[in-house]
Amino acid sequence: MKMFMSDNNSGVHPKIMEAIVNVNKGHEYAYGNDKTTKMAIEKICEIMGKDVDVYFVTTGTAANVISLSGILRPFEGVVCADTAHINVDECGALERFGSAKILQIPNKNGKIDIEGVKKYLHSIGDEHHTQPRVISISQTTEMGTLYTIEEIRALADFAHENNMYLHVDGARIANAVVALNTSFKEMITDTGVDILSFGGTKNGMMLGEAIVSFNEEISKTLKFHRKQGMQLISKMRFVSVQFIAYLTDDLWKENALNSNNMGKYFIDHLSQFPSLVKLKDDLETNIIFAHMDKALIKALQEKFDFYVMDEEAGLIRLVTSFDTTEEEIDEFIEFIKNFIGS
Amino acid sequence: MKMFMSDNNSGVHPKIMEAIVNVNKGHEYAYGNDKTTKMAIEKICEIMGKDVDVYFVTTGTAANVISLSGILRPFEGVVCADTAHINVDECGALERFGSAKILQIPNKNGKIDIEGVKKYLHSIGDEHHTQPRVISISQTTEMGTLYTIEEIRALADFAHENNMYLHVDGARIANAVVALNTSFKEMITDTGVDILSFGGTKNGMMLGEAIVSFNEEISKTLKFHRKQGMQLISKMRFVSVQFIAYLTDDLWKENALNSNNMGKYFIDHLSQFPSLVKLKDDLETNIIFAHMDKALIKALQEKFDFYVMDEEAGLIRLVTSFDTTEEEIDEFIEFIKNFIGS
Amino acid sequence: MKMFMSDNNSGVHPKIMEAIVNVNKGHEYAYGNDKTTKMAIEKICEIMGKDVDVYFVTTGTAANVISLSGILRPFEGVVCADTAHINVDECGALERFGSAKILQIPNKNGKIDIEGVKKYLHSIGDEHHTQPRVISISQTTEMGTLYTIEEIRALADFAHENNMYLHVDGARIANAVVALNTSFKEMITDTGVDILSFGGTKNGMMLGEAIVSFNEEISKTLKFHRKQGMQLISKMRFVSVQFIAYLTDDLWKENALNSNNMGKYFIDHLSQFPSLVKLKDDLETNIIFAHMDKALIKALQEKFDFYVMDEEAGLIRLVTSFDTTEEEIDEFIEFIKNFIGS
Amino acid sequence: MKMFMSDNNSGVHPKIMEAIVNVNKGHEYAYGNDKTTKMAIEKICEIMGKDVDVYFVTTGTAANVISLSGILRPFEGVVCADTAHINVDECGALERFGSAKILQIPNKNGKIDIEGVKKYLHSIGDEHHTQPRVISISQTTEMGTLYTIEEIRALADFAHENNMYLHVDGARIANAVVALNTSFKEMITDTGVDILSFGGTKNGMMLGEAIVSFNEEISKTLKFHRKQGMQLISKMRFVSVQFIAYLTDDLWKENALNSNNMGKYFIDHLSQFPSLVKLKDDLETNIIFAHMDKALIKALQEKFDFYVMDEEAGLIRLVTSFDTTEEEIDEFIEFIKNFIGS
Repeated sequence: MKMFMSDNNSGVHPKIMEAIVNVNKGHEYAYGNDKTTKMAIEKICEIMGKDVDVYFVTTGTAANVISLSGILRPFEGVVCADTAHINVDECGALERFGSAKILQIPNKNGKIDIEGVKKYLHSIGDEHHTQPRVISISQTTEMGTLYTIEEIRALADFAHENNMYLHVDGARIANAVVALNTSFKEMITDTGVDILSFGGTKNGMMLGEAIVSFNEEISKTLKFHRKQGMQLISKMRFVSVQFIAYLTDDLWKENALNSNNMGKYFIDHLSQFPSLVKLKDDLETNIIFAHMDKALIKALQEKFDFYVMDEEAGLIRLVTSFDTTEEEIDEFIEFIKNFIGS
Repeated sequence: MKMFMSDNNSGVHPKIMEAIVNVNKGHEYAYGNDKTTKMAIEKICEIMGKDVDVYFVTTGTAANVISLSGILRPFEGVVCADTAHINVDECGALERFGSAKILQIPNKNGKIDIEGVKKYLHSIGDEHHTQPRVISISQTTEMGTLYTIEEIRALADFAHENNMYLHVDGARIANAVVALNTSFKEMITDTGVDILSFGGTKNGMMLGEAIVSFNEEISKTLKFHRKQGMQLISKMRFVSVQFIAYLTDDLWKENALNSNNMGKYFIDHLSQFPSLVKLKDDLETNIIFAHMDKALIKALQEKFDFYVMDEEAGLIRLVTSFDTTEEEIDEFIEFIKNFIGS
Repeated sequence: MKMFMSDNNSGVHPKIMEAIVNVNKGHEYAYGNDKTTKMAIEKICEIMGKDVDVYFVTTGTAANVISLSGILRPFEGVVCADTAHINVDECGALERFGSAKILQIPNKNGKIDIEGVKKYLHSIGDEHHTQPRVISISQTTEMGTLYTIEEIRALADFAHENNMYLHVDGARIANAVVALNTSFKEMITDTGVDILSFGGTKNGMMLGEAIVSFNEEISKTLKFHRKQGMQLISKMRFVSVQFIAYLTDDLWKENALNSNNMGKYFIDHLSQFPSLVKLKDDLETNIIFAHMDKALIKALQEKFDFYVMDEEAGLIRLVTSFDTTEEEIDEFIEFIKNFIGS
Repeated sequence: MKMFMSDNNSGVHPKIMEAIVNVNKGHEYAYGNDKTTKMAIEKICEIMGKDVDVYFVTTGTAANVISLSGILRPFEGVVCADTAHINVDECGALERFGSAKILQIPNKNGKIDIEGVKKYLHSIGDEHHTQPRVISISQTTEMGTLYTIEEIRALADFAHENNMYLHVDGARIANAVVALNTSFKEMITDTGVDILSFGGTKNGMMLGEAIVSFNEEISKTLKFHRKQGMQLISKMRFVSVQFIAYLTDDLWKENALNSNNMGKYFIDHLSQFPSLVKLKDDLETNIIFAHMDKALIKALQEKFDFYVMDEEAGLIRLVTSFDTTEEEIDEFIEFIKNFIGS
C-alpha cells in the first residue's frame, strides 16, 4: 500500500538502484575524489548550463543549512517566508550550526515578495540589528505553490542590488521545473540564483541532495562548511552516482511528471465533493492541501496514511510520488464515495 | 587495483548491497519510523546484550559529534588524546556544532590513561575553566593500537566516579573486537561505556554509522541533536538495513577478520626488510605505520595508493580492508624486493 | 540640553556615583567574591522577598542572552513577541551565543498572551521542530505598555504547566513597578517569574544589570554561562555597589517615579495638538509613541534628539529619564506651538 | 591589607576615578556616539602612532574573544600557547562565541615561536582540518615572561607570509612596554600586530578594555561582533573616559612602573631564601612564580592572599599592582624570616 504522507515515503527508482549496484566495483578514492563524483558534477554543470560547484550531501536540511551557513556570518541573517522549511521544519539547525538569524516574512500562499524583504533593509549598517544577507525561497513552496520565473529573477535582481544573495530550497525543484514546463537552466541559472539546494531524495533517489553554487565567491569555503557539517561522505560515489542516473535520459523529468500528474489527477477527483472537500488554491504540483469534514478525515486515517496539518480546522495534506498510480488514488476517492453513501 | 589508503576506499560488501536492494519495496514511514529500522535496532540491542538506544547517521564525524554534543553543555568539555579523530580530523566540527571545548591529553601510542585525565579534574566547579564531562577514546586508536578491556573498564569507572561519561569512537570497533577475540557486549556494554560511535562504513557498509547510547539520561535528547545535526535521513531503511545484514551470520566478524589478517600478513612480510622498513610497535589490527627509506616511498607511490603521514620523517600508513587479498599485498612486497634488487 | 532619545542617554545619579567612589578602598577579592557584591545580593534578595541567585553583568543584552542561554539547550526555543528586544534589537546575540531559536508571536500593543504561545505547543516531542522552553516578556514592553500582575501570573502558570519557564526582560522594570503601584516582590516573585533581567542602567546607574534567578535548577549553571558570556567582571564591587545605592532609601522608586511623571506630563501636553500629534494608546510609563506631522518632525529634529521609528508613517518615540525636568518638556511643547503659529 | 592574588584585586587609580566623576554631566549620545569616546579613540590613535579602530569593552575575555571571533570563520583556528588565557582561563568562551578551534602549541616558558606554528601549516587547504588563521600571543605572558620586539615582529611577518594575522592579548601590555623600555608604537604598531586586546583594568582602571584593530579589513565587522558579544555599553563615556585619564600624563606608565618595580623588589627579597624559595627564570614584570616549601606556603596562606598554582609541587604565584608598596612586601618577607626562625 502506497502512502500520501510525503514523497519521501517512496523507495528508490529502479534505475537509480541499478546505478548504485553498478558503481560497487573495487576501490576508489574517498571523500569525493573519485571519478564517479567528478562525472556527476559534470552532469549537473550540463543541466544547469554553467560551470557550477557541487557539494553532495545526504539530507535536505544539510543542503539548506550548509548552503546558508556557508554564506552567513553570525551577525547576518536569511530573509524567508515564515513557512519556510528552514524556519519551521529543521529544529533550528540553521541557528545552531550557522549561529545566524532567520528574518521572517509573513507568507502569501507560501511565497514572499520584494516588498516583504524591504522591511529588513533599514537595518543595514546598524549594529543593533541582524544584517540581511541572503533571501531564501522554496520552489516548490511548502504550500504547494510556485514562483514564476519572472518572480525568481526579480528576487535575484533585488538581492544583488542590495548586496544580498538568493538561495533556493529545491527539495522539490524537479516538480517545479516540470510544472512550469521549463528547464533548470532557465529557472535557476538564468534568473540569477546564487545557490541551490538541489533535492533528489523526494523524486526517486535513495539519499541524494546536492548544494549547487553558481557563485565563485560562495564556493570558496563550502567544502569546509560541508566537512564541519558532518556531511563529507567517505564512499561518495554511492551518492553521486544517483545524480548521474537521475540526470540521464530525463529520469528526473519522468519521475516529477508522474508526481505532478498524479497530483492533478487527485485534485480533479477530489473536486467532485465540494461539500466535503475544499481544496486550497494555486496547487500546481504534487502537494495537495484540502479542508475536509472531520468525520471523513477520521475515517480516511484508518485506511490511508497522510498528514493532518490542523486537526481543529480539518486541514490535511496529500502528497503524490514518482511511483504513485491512478489505482491508488482511485481507492482513496472510492472510499470517500462510500463514506458519503454510508 | 585495490588501495591501502584507508578502509573507506573499499566498496560495499555484496551481502550488504543485496540487503539494500531487497529493502526497496513500496512505501514506508520516513525518518526511522519504519519496520526495517526497528529491526536493525533490535539487532544492535541483541549484539550489545542490552536495551540500548540507537540513532543511525551517515558519517563517522556525525556519530562522534552528535554523540558528544548531545551530552556536553557549552561550558563543558571532552577529554581525549591529542591524536583523537575528533580533535584533528573533523575540522573543528565539535567546537562548531557543540560549542564545547576539547581538553587534550598527550597520547601514549594513541592512547590515554587515568593519570592524563586527572589534570583536568582540578577545574571542576571553577567557572574560569571548561568543565570536564566526557572522556572519549578511539578503539581501534588512530595509531592502530588497542585498549584492553580492563583499560576501558578502568576509564569508565573513573569517569563515573567523577560525574563524567565515557564515549568510544568506534569507527573501527569491529577490528578491535576481533583483534581482542571478544564480543561487543564484553568490550562495550560490560565495561560501562556510556555511548558508542558504532562504525560500519570502514568495514563493508555503503554509509552506515550508528550512535548507540547505553545511558537513558543521554538518550533523552539525542533525537533532537541528530535532527539539528542534519542527519535525520528520510528514507532511513536504506541505512538501517545495512546493519541488519552486517550483524547477520557474523558478517561484521568475517570482514574485520579479513582486514586484521591481511594487516598481520602485511606486517609479517614487511618485517623481512629491517634495513628499509621500521614498523611501529603495538600494531594489532588493520592499520600499519612504518618508517621507510624515502626513495622507496617515492617509488612505491607511483604504483600504490597510501598516505604519507610525515614526508620528512619517512612515515607512511597502510590500511587493509575487508576485501584486501594476499595477492595485493604480495604485489606490494614484490615491488620492494625489486626496488632493493635494482 | 537633555535628550528624549532613550533613558540611557542620561548620566549617573549622584548617589550612585557617590557609592562608586566610596567603594574604591584598598584591595578586594575579584570576580564577585568581595563583600560589597555579597551585600548587594542580599539587598536584591530583600527587595524580591526571596533567597534568589544574582549574577551582575554590564549590559541589558548580556542579562537577557545569558539568562536565556543558561536555560535553553540548542534545540529549544524562547517564545516572545515579534517586537521583543531579544528578537529585534540584539543583533541575533541569542542565536549566536545560545545556538537556540526565537519563536515569535505577533504582538498586541507590545504584548503576548497564552493563546499566542499555544501555537508552539504542538511541536513538543517532535524532533523536526524547535522545542518551546521559555516564554519571555518585556516589562515595560518595547511599546511602552505594561502587563498587569494577573497577566504575568497567568503566563507563569501556563509556562509551568507546560514544562516551560517565564523570563522577564526588565530593562525598565522599575518604571513598571512604579506605574502599577506595586512592588518587585508582588510583580515578579509572587507571580512565579523564573528569571529576571533586572535593569539599572536606564534608571540612573552607570552600567548595572543583574540576572536574578528565582529557580534553583536554573541557577546551577549560570555562573559558567556568565563567564563564557564574557561578563565576569573582575572588579565587580564597582558594579554591585550601584545596586546597593539603588535599593537604599528607595532611590530606584524616586528615579522611576520622575521618569514616569515626566512621561505623563509629556503625554498631557502633547494631547493639546490633536491635529498634529496622535499619541499611541496605553502609554503608561516613560516611553511615548506619537504619530506627528512630518514637517513638524523635521523641524523638531533640528532642535531635539529623539528616534524617528518610521519616517514614512511619521512615527516618533520620546523617552523621559530619571533626571528629565518639566522645563525641558515645556521647551519641546513650546517649539510645537511656535511651529503651528509660524 | 593589599593582596598578591592578582593585579585586578586592586581598586581604581584616583585620577581615573576623578575622570569618571567629571564626565557625569548631562545627557550624551549612547553606544559610543559621544564626544568622550571619540576623544578616547583619538588618544589611543596617538599613542599607537596610527589611525586605528577602537572598540571599548568591559572584560579582558571580551577583548580577546571578540577580537578573535571577529576574524575567524568557524572552520578556522587560532594558534597559541597551551598556557594562553584564551585556552585555559576563559571557560571555552572562544569556542562557544566564535565556533572556532584553538590550535595549541606546547609553550616554552609561556611563549611560542615560529617552529611551533609551522606544524599547523600542513593543514592549509585540507577540509579535514581546522585552517590556521590567527596567531595569538600574550604580552606579558601568563608565565610572567616577555616577547622581545624582534620576536613579535618575526611572528607578525610569519603570520602575514602565511595569510594569517597576529593578535596580542595585552591584559598586561603596559607592564611589558615599561619592562622593555619601549613604546606602544614600537612594540605593537611597528612590529605589524594586527589586533590588540588593550588591557586597562589590571593597571588601575575600574573596568576598561579596548579592542584595537590595526587592520582595516578586520575592522569592517567588529562593531557587529561587539554587539553580538553583549559588550556594546550604552553609557560608554564612563568606560572610554578611563582611557583618556590613563593615557594622559603617562599615568599608564607610572602605574606599570610601580607594579614592575615592586615585582623586582619582591624577587630581590625572595632570593635571600634559596633553600626555601626557588624563583622561576625570566621573570621581568609584576608576576612572580616561586616554588616554596609546603609548610611555608601553608603558613603564608593564613596571613596573605595569593594563588597556589600547584599544591603538590608547591608552586605559588605572587602579583604586584599599581598600588603595591614596599611595606606590604616587607611584611611578607618578614613573615618568611620569622617562619625560618621559629
